[in-house]
Amino acid sequence: MLPTHFTPVPLDKSYRLMNHGPTVLVSAQHGDSINVMAAAWACVLDFGNTPKVTVVLDKATRTRELIEASGFFALQLPTQAMATLTCGVGTDSAKDTPHKLAKHGVTTFAAPNSGTPLVHGCVGWLVCQLVPEPHNQTAYDLFIGDVLGAWADDRVFRDGRWHFDAASDDLRTIHHVAGGQFFVTGKTVQG
Amino acid sequence: MLPTHFTPVPLDKSYRLMNHGPTVLVSAQHGDSINVMAAAWACVLDFGNTPKVTVVLDKATRTRELIEASGFFALQLPTQAMATLTCGVGTDSAKDTPHKLAKHGVTTFAAPNSGTPLVHGCVGWLVCQLVPEPHNQTAYDLFIGDVLGAWADDRVFRDGRWHFDAASDDLRTIHHVAGGQFFVTGKTVQG
Repeated sequence: MLPTHFTPVPLDKSYRLMNHGPTVLVSAQHGDSINVMAAAWACVLDFGNTPKVTVVLDKATRTRELIEASGFFALQLPTQAMATLTCGVGTDSAKDTPHKLAKHGVTTFAAPNSGTPLVHGCVGWLVCQLVPEPHNQTAYDLFIGDVLGAWADDRVFRDGRWHFDAASDDLRTIHHVAGGQFFVTGKTVQG
Repeated sequence: MLPTHFTPVPLDKSYRLMNHGPTVLVSAQHGDSINVMAAAWACVLDFGNTPKVTVVLDKATRTRELIEASGFFALQLPTQAMATLTCGVGTDSAKDTPHKLAKHGVTTFAAPNSGTPLVHGCVGWLVCQLVPEPHNQTAYDLFIGDVLGAWADDRVFRDGRWHFDAASDDLRTIHHVAGGQFFVTGKTVQG
């Protein structure tokens, strides 16, 4: 069942979910195997009606194997309330800790259409199809995805914009620095 | 002359300047021509002793031409106090506005050793050598750089870590959302 507040975002506005550079959770599934990891090195690559993203995925990760096998993944934005969960799935590997998701309280639901596993509690989700670029993947651990669909929690993102100020601080996105320390997305200023 | 508070950051800590996903200013020089643009789509690609970054540079930009001609560029982190400047150099092009830097109050100084132009008022600077990847540059506007040297303003970054809480909010980094709206880097939470 889809979470309450799970609302479609038009493709041409989906870059705004990640434009401010938050840390993401990366999820993927192949066969019955689902995994989730954290990645601070994720970025918008293109916008408009053919949005793209990049994400750096270490060769040691189980999630990378699932993406290479299935050709699909999701990037999603954890909240301040999920900082400990994010740190946990970014530290443990499913290769050493088979019950990693249960250990860190991660539950998933299937994205509409694609069925890609998405993480409960996040405030933005982007389902992506891998754009195979073997040289980038091998030399730089750099993966490119075409964004196929996007959704957001309408308590904090609606009409194509974030509205963090009007909601609980628990729903703010987070930005990893190092060693489990994060900055919370702060106040708005106009340039 | 180098700015006060301009302090070297060890290469293996330089990724921490950008790990939280702030918007950057991109600067470059070829011959006597210097330019500066804003980029929200910049990201760490690797850390350790061979740190790398990515940045997306539109084909229409003058700064991209300078980088392709010289093989060098710098990424640097503007502050809350520089939100209007950042918006200005991200909107105007030097192709239409030859005195773009003066118009927006941008002044530069030469980086130690390389001489790459760096922007006064920023709180972190990374001098990079272009890693030529013609396919990425042409197909995706995606540029990769080896970080050769890094510096930070020691009022907000020292001992390998950000210390925004102890300084003026004017020195906080910023994250572009859309249309000249930015989020300021917010409070610290431990995961």
